[in-house]
Amino acid sequence: MTDATFSQAERDAVYRAIAERRDMRHFSGGTVEPELLRRLLEAAHQAPSVGLMQPWRFLRISDRTVRAQIQGLVEEERIRTAQALGERTDEFMKLKVEGINDCAEVLVAALMDDRERHIFGRRTLPEMDIASLSCAIQNLWLASRAEGLGMGWVSLFEPQALADLLGMPPGAKPMAVLCLGPVQEFYPAPMLVLEGWAQSRPLGELLYENVWGESQ
Amino acid sequence: MTDATFSQAERDAVYRAIAERRDMRHFSGGTVEPELLRRLLEAAHQAPSVGLMQPWRFLRISDRTVRAQIQGLVEEERIRTAQALGERTDEFMKLKVEGINDCAEVLVAALMDDRERHIFGRRTLPEMDIASLSCAIQNLWLASRAEGLGMGWVSLFEPQALADLLGMPPGAKPMAVLCLGPVQEFYPAPMLVLEGWAQSRPLGELLYENVWGESQ
Repeated sequence: MTDATFSQAERDAVYRAIAERRDMRHFSGGTVEPELLRRLLEAAHQAPSVGLMQPWRFLRISDRTVRAQIQGLVEEERIRTAQALGERTDEFMKLKVEGINDCAEVLVAALMDDRERHIFGRRTLPEMDIASLSCAIQNLWLASRAEGLGMGWVSLFEPQALADLLGMPPGAKPMAVLCLGPVQEFYPAPMLVLEGWAQSRPLGELLYENVWGESQ
Repeated sequence: MTDATFSQAERDAVYRAIAERRDMRHFSGGTVEPELLRRLLEAAHQAPSVGLMQPWRFLRISDRTVRAQIQGLVEEERIRTAQALGERTDEFMKLKVEGINDCAEVLVAALMDDRERHIFGRRTLPEMDIASLSCAIQNLWLASRAEGLGMGWVSLFEPQALADLLGMPPGAKPMAVLCLGPVQEFYPAPMLVLEGWAQSRPLGELLYENVWGESQ
């Protein structure tokens, strides 16, 4: 077991990345070196996946025209979401919900096509492919934080419109526009808490024992 | 920015946890101290969530009878999955797909009920709640690995049957039976690779630039 054991300092570093990771919307331009970007994506690629299906696909958006088109799709959905929010419309419109124009790199994370043939662990829960992709994105997020880079997951877009824009085949589905890059500073708490949009609930309220609703 | 920077040793530790995390099915009994379990769950609870909805709920299964009932549900689905796999039925039946009876702790991770009212980031992608729950589970997985504990995510169950067993309200949905605890050793590679079930693909094949299918 000895070489499988993490030192206290290593454990602390893992907990630190988990605690200090933030969903960033404010970026300071700059660049991400290709080797660093590759390292981050390799971290994503080491995620678990149901039946080892590795359903994730990543598109690096290096074309500024495509980036602008993606930003346009997000802006359209931002307005539709604001309208759907009713009495919180104005409040929502004041929030910064994406950093597509300001971040160093934009990545689109998508589910692959041809997922139906993967039955292992998905016969009753086909959405396990989303779970695997999300674990990959969380790896990317934590590795980015450790590298001092911010990342934001934007889900404000019409998936079919984005799929069409990026030439995705039928069955593939974009799940994330990821903004990645240098930031001035990391939020000391989730931005939606700082902005007064929402409050975080204590863990104890979300934890039960044996039966739903029975708090520990 | 200085205090936001991770040292090289801290970065290495984060990458190590990502690289050495495994989806474990073999456990060696034992226990997980309550404070340690709480630390792991607090790590899960620090995950990002869409619109800060924190859709995750965790049920600790301390009742051995309930654990046995969960194992029964998983066994039923294991057989149904094997049948659905056709020519790979026998091969699948030889795999160890869960460690429910051998692990120190069983946790069930579920999506909360009453999710419809959360529109932020979910108007076009309602499945973002699954994404948030999955990020929480990945945090739990990485923290467990750093603590020297194994974890396995079992998704072989009929979700409504498990929801009924645990008294979940309408709209709540179990997504994971998590086996957690001490292990003899961590697999040196994903168990499904070691067992010859599947092969891992290189990242380069899953990475495109601007347009789907255009490799970098």
